[in-house]
Amino acid sequence: MTVFDAKALANAGVRNLSPYQAGKPIEELERELGISNIVKLASNENPLGLSAKVKQALQDQLSGLARYPDANGYYLKTKIAEKFDLKPNQITLGNGSNDVLELIARTFVSDENEVIFSQHAFVVYPLVTQAIGAKGIAVPARDYGHDLNAMLGAITDRTRMIFIANPNNPTGTFLTSEALHEFLQKVPAQVLVVLDEAYSEYVAEDERAPSFSWVAEFPNLLVTRTFSKAYGLAGLRAGFAVTRPEVADLLNRVRQPFNMNSLSLRAAEVALEDTEYLEKSVIVNDTGMAQLTLFCEQNGLKYIPSRGNFLTIEVGDDAAGIYQKLLHAGVIVRPVAGYELPRHLRVSIGLPEENEVFISAMDTILAEQAG
Amino acid sequence: MTVFDAKALANAGVRNLSPYQAGKPIEELERELGISNIVKLASNENPLGLSAKVKQALQDQLSGLARYPDANGYYLKTKIAEKFDLKPNQITLGNGSNDVLELIARTFVSDENEVIFSQHAFVVYPLVTQAIGAKGIAVPARDYGHDLNAMLGAITDRTRMIFIANPNNPTGTFLTSEALHEFLQKVPAQVLVVLDEAYSEYVAEDERAPSFSWVAEFPNLLVTRTFSKAYGLAGLRAGFAVTRPEVADLLNRVRQPFNMNSLSLRAAEVALEDTEYLEKSVIVNDTGMAQLTLFCEQNGLKYIPSRGNFLTIEVGDDAAGIYQKLLHAGVIVRPVAGYELPRHLRVSIGLPEENEVFISAMDTILAEQAG
Repeated sequence: MTVFDAKALANAGVRNLSPYQAGKPIEELERELGISNIVKLASNENPLGLSAKVKQALQDQLSGLARYPDANGYYLKTKIAEKFDLKPNQITLGNGSNDVLELIARTFVSDENEVIFSQHAFVVYPLVTQAIGAKGIAVPARDYGHDLNAMLGAITDRTRMIFIANPNNPTGTFLTSEALHEFLQKVPAQVLVVLDEAYSEYVAEDERAPSFSWVAEFPNLLVTRTFSKAYGLAGLRAGFAVTRPEVADLLNRVRQPFNMNSLSLRAAEVALEDTEYLEKSVIVNDTGMAQLTLFCEQNGLKYIPSRGNFLTIEVGDDAAGIYQKLLHAGVIVRPVAGYELPRHLRVSIGLPEENEVFISAMDTILAEQAG
Repeated sequence: MTVFDAKALANAGVRNLSPYQAGKPIEELERELGISNIVKLASNENPLGLSAKVKQALQDQLSGLARYPDANGYYLKTKIAEKFDLKPNQITLGNGSNDVLELIARTFVSDENEVIFSQHAFVVYPLVTQAIGAKGIAVPARDYGHDLNAMLGAITDRTRMIFIANPNNPTGTFLTSEALHEFLQKVPAQVLVVLDEAYSEYVAEDERAPSFSWVAEFPNLLVTRTFSKAYGLAGLRAGFAVTRPEVADLLNRVRQPFNMNSLSLRAAEVALEDTEYLEKSVIVNDTGMAQLTLFCEQNGLKYIPSRGNFLTIEVGDDAAGIYQKLLHAGVIVRPVAGYELPRHLRVSIGLPEENEVFISAMDTILAEQAG
């Protein structure tokens, strides 16, 4: 009998996938380091915590949990459609936008295709591409952001999909509405453009691209959004795609019917309507962004101007060492060497007092370096 | 410019996938039918509702939900490993066992492979096979259950995977430990066997296959379990696979890091330890099964002897009509014509009083037929 070799049996793309390196729970880290009250500025989460209205709604929902979730997400899709002037049949719900991005790739991309994304862009794009066995094309960034002309130039006969993150994570760079529209006009109809707007709510309304309405003009455009950032539901996993109905129909064939659970469906419904929480999220972010950029400027630290809920700061050759020092001072930030940014650290915007813990720790580190 | 044709761009397997036909929320159905207090015996859910201990734990957890879930599921995997005498690195967590089954297929099956499953077996097996573009081989059932010898006979050079559901849904048929062990000995090492034990907790302990320990003997064996049935967490989405560590390593490369949300992780941890709830689930199921089988026998209705939390009853040529009559009498059951069982209806075991509503409605329907 043949010897069992799991790796040899796995699909080609899977064999070379790097296992996702997840952080440890804060509780574990605190125990290991022997410190408490760690400030986590590492995952672009909303520092306000869960909206009080969402919390109440979840409490009211707990009893029904032995029943399966609503596989159609009927109420949530209706609410999204109302809020954004869409039809429910344009919406595909996901277990976070990670799930939506993966669904899109699995529906349209095969191992014969190429997928284009930018250098320094969100790690999920190359990961889902590789899992399928397709060829990922990382186009060099310009000023840390997407070089749209170079991305257009990378299109070949095999290109099936282009991922654009706007604002981009982990750099925070932003493409104007005009630049994006011009880009979409130049992309061939048979190449799908996935516009990932996870951080869109942090951009001033008058600067946001009217991306949902563009779907009528560009049938090959798929726009994704998440509830993990400004809506404060990272722990609940909720996201969605807005597309033409015929695209949504295909995505929903591949979607697991119960990909969103009963509580995430309900939380997203309530979060959509909690405009007070959303506005407060943006104010807290603007305030914290000003606090962190001022600190950088006062200390001669370069940073990538960001439209997200994080700031990526150039701390120099010893980024890994500074990350460790910050950790021991009780602040978790995100090393971004894996994004080809080995001299930077990404700092999520926290509450003012959380940002202050980071600033104070950095002051100490910078003083040591100077001394 | 080429005209956009979404379907032409979709992967071959996706193009012909039937969209999942989900039921409407009960609230919607009640409004449409103009009736209230519908008894749902359609989805093999746990009629006890959520465990009180789980409910309390979820309440305690609500505040942290703006943070991402633990991507490793550290605590849940530790608890599963302790309870079942496994190592945490043998476990892959899923957003329900649907997610686990899909992950397994996507990790190992390509469009060049064949996948074997039984006629009348769980719909997710052919669906995930088709989404990948692989060839599904449905082996004719024997007495409504898996014909293991015929399944062995269906293995070819292209076979990568065999799905076995035990007990099977929607028939409730059961393979003995001896039959399964003999089967596993005959399957070539390079063919993976996925043993789906979603309903395992309803089988008497001394009759259950020692499937987790078999993983040491058969490295090509993958066992899946769910929290949606006896543990009562259908609305929260929690399931897992037990495999050799090298198989789990591959599955975890494909797994979305946040596939289980914070509340489902926590709920599953607590549910695992709530043995009182689990025991009560089994007692309620045994009682209800006796109630329904007695009714069938007294009324000359044939049924498929079931080891799950449901009974599939042969109601005759007018199964679809009887389904509708039951619906209007306030009882939802599951038509199984899509499983090539057009003369049957699947009835989930409810609380005694819920089963009584079904029995009483059936009495009326049978009296009408006789009259």
